[in-house]
Amino acid sequence: MDDIKQKIEAANAEAVKRINAADPVLIDIAPAGQVIPGLTDRMLLHSGPPVDWQRMCGAQRGAMMGAAIFEGWAGSVDEAGKLLESGAIRFEPNHPHQAVGPMAGTISASMPVWVVENKTFGNRAFCRQVEGRQQFGDYSDGALQGLRQWRDVWAPALRKGLLQMGGLSLKPIIAKALQMGDELHNRPVAASSLFANAMACPMIEAGVAKDNLIGTLKYITNHELIFLALAMAAGKASADPAAGIEYSTVVVAMARNGTEFGIRVSGLGEEWFTAPAPRVNGLYFPGYGGEDAGADIGDSAITETVGWGGFVLAGATGILALVGGTPEEAMVYSKDMRQITVTASPNYRMPIMGFQGAPVGIDIRKVVQTGIVPIIDTAIAHRNPGYSIIGAGLVRAPMECFKKALTAFGRKYGLGRS
Amino acid sequence: MDDIKQKIEAANAEAVKRINAADPVLIDIAPAGQVIPGLTDRMLLHSGPPVDWQRMCGAQRGAMMGAAIFEGWAGSVDEAGKLLESGAIRFEPNHPHQAVGPMAGTISASMPVWVVENKTFGNRAFCRQVEGRQQFGDYSDGALQGLRQWRDVWAPALRKGLLQMGGLSLKPIIAKALQMGDELHNRPVAASSLFANAMACPMIEAGVAKDNLIGTLKYITNHELIFLALAMAAGKASADPAAGIEYSTVVVAMARNGTEFGIRVSGLGEEWFTAPAPRVNGLYFPGYGGEDAGADIGDSAITETVGWGGFVLAGATGILALVGGTPEEAMVYSKDMRQITVTASPNYRMPIMGFQGAPVGIDIRKVVQTGIVPIIDTAIAHRNPGYSIIGAGLVRAPMECFKKALTAFGRKYGLGRS
Repeated sequence: MDDIKQKIEAANAEAVKRINAADPVLIDIAPAGQVIPGLTDRMLLHSGPPVDWQRMCGAQRGAMMGAAIFEGWAGSVDEAGKLLESGAIRFEPNHPHQAVGPMAGTISASMPVWVVENKTFGNRAFCRQVEGRQQFGDYSDGALQGLRQWRDVWAPALRKGLLQMGGLSLKPIIAKALQMGDELHNRPVAASSLFANAMACPMIEAGVAKDNLIGTLKYITNHELIFLALAMAAGKASADPAAGIEYSTVVVAMARNGTEFGIRVSGLGEEWFTAPAPRVNGLYFPGYGGEDAGADIGDSAITETVGWGGFVLAGATGILALVGGTPEEAMVYSKDMRQITVTASPNYRMPIMGFQGAPVGIDIRKVVQTGIVPIIDTAIAHRNPGYSIIGAGLVRAPMECFKKALTAFGRKYGLGRS
Repeated sequence: MDDIKQKIEAANAEAVKRINAADPVLIDIAPAGQVIPGLTDRMLLHSGPPVDWQRMCGAQRGAMMGAAIFEGWAGSVDEAGKLLESGAIRFEPNHPHQAVGPMAGTISASMPVWVVENKTFGNRAFCRQVEGRQQFGDYSDGALQGLRQWRDVWAPALRKGLLQMGGLSLKPIIAKALQMGDELHNRPVAASSLFANAMACPMIEAGVAKDNLIGTLKYITNHELIFLALAMAAGKASADPAAGIEYSTVVVAMARNGTEFGIRVSGLGEEWFTAPAPRVNGLYFPGYGGEDAGADIGDSAITETVGWGGFVLAGATGILALVGGTPEEAMVYSKDMRQITVTASPNYRMPIMGFQGAPVGIDIRKVVQTGIVPIIDTAIAHRNPGYSIIGAGLVRAPMECFKKALTAFGRKYGLGRS
């Protein structure tokens, strides 16, 4: 057993070393079909572990219908529903495609995605636009209009600026935002503001036409969640090199599709360890309540996977007006997360905790031993298709995922026999 | 005595009601000589209470020399020194001119100043550019070049944008920044970022020429302290209507000239109650130490006067890397400031303290009774002329000012006779 324990410790040390060494740089914004490996036509990527149409939640179905209309595969919501039910469109999860998406997380070929390269390891990660409507299952024309503006105006203008400047390093922005009350998941307001400032001059220098320039600047300077997609892509780009390390018990992905919550573990290959997606404990927008809520959904828990989001809630108490709770509870969450992680980030620090680093590298053993499961900031989607965001709150990763993973780990590495 | 006590309570309630009702809006950026009442040619305004050349500290002298060269009154540092010593230039403090300035706080007629109007009361306040060199006493050509760029390029470009947009409301930016880890004095990084976000589109829409547009955008998107001047002008615009209320023991100005620290009290007219400027307890930039430091200087304590800066340090712990101290100490400071103030702000809140309002309305009675003096964030200037910033830290307002004011209050309102 000691031998195995040493192997695990060494493997986990390597895993967090890789996460901490990540250097995520935004290098492009390009149509998903041109950049995401394996994303073909007549395919929709989605958040969380695999799920088929029959088991798909309302928000996921609504978002898929919206995407089918957006791609021109269907002319109406009804047509879209029939098409998707027919099996003519292939559904695959984002994660195996190096991608992540907020809430339903829909990615189709013509949607421009953020392209983040981890310069330390050369791997790339992709995240779709964060917009707050279609991603929640809203398939209305108003919702799809936001995707079209992104595709036709905002993404091309930002791309021009980005190529002009030769890429944007995200690490300094993330580090700074964490000292400005962001947790980079539900609250990326500082990072979004810093990002907008970083893009203004390059877009002008690149000669973006005045109308598109003003339109795009208005979009990014008023979009307090725009950086969430970059935090997610940076998180995915940072976590991916830590996957596939034999003997490592470190979690490299947590993701939800609204039906199931799933985790992947470094030493356990591509397998998802799942449990039913939990309910979110949160606050609702006027007119909505718990009875309207769908279950936990989205790839955005990749931010917690690398130590942001709920893990640094102590430093982001401004978010409590949105998700509920007290500063004292927030402090307890961040302290608790130290107990289930391997190390603290040398790059990303929390002033309110004396500049302690963010908790990095969730260890499935520690989760099972302590009974403390990861805490995740999240938004709340409606249980039925056709709605925008209805609330926001906190959710706990289900213990079942970690127990299943630990059992599988025991089976694979022989712990069960000792 | 009870009658007087009631009068004081009522007067103080009125004072903080006025401070809390303030609605500061940036309405212009214009040459000081065109907008500041009573600022004439051959006059230099400075921070703090009145001070003459003989008693002026090194930083103040250096800044004056820089301003004299900037205005073309002198061709060299030597000439400037002789001119200023000769009495040919009139020195007056900023505060009686509705103005404030960071550190030495120099304002001369041709320097563009931020013009903030308090829409609730119609009064205006002015603050000069925050630039970090000349204001610390650096009279080098490099330092003055920053003033010239401000005068010739940045201020005119920003003015165009500002007039295009019809003014910029500061209250929402300040409220938001206080939830983003700013305290708006030493750390206005979020507010500065939000300000740059707000100015980008209007400058483009106003047709600012491309070179000036890019130059100005680069300046404001990289200037983490740019909002300090706006916080100061907003603070001054908010505090001024609270002045001159008979029987009020609320402090309406705290300001330092590097030689003396002075306060003004609502019920005590224009009088300054002064004490020797204290030493700052802080951290120094490489190559400098306590033996190089001048004493406390600047009008920037107007931010603490209205409840920001050191008063909300608990919510701005990112600053501790700059000024020293622990998050626990920061929390104690903010709690302590509640003990010496009349009320909490309904507008400006601290998430880390459960969204408690900033402590507003320093009551000289409470200061003397509790022995707790206001805590102020500040930068450190060199003791000799010719230097830029050398450090930053925390300083306590001298108790002597409050005791003197309370004695004067007793004399004026008859408390001493009871």
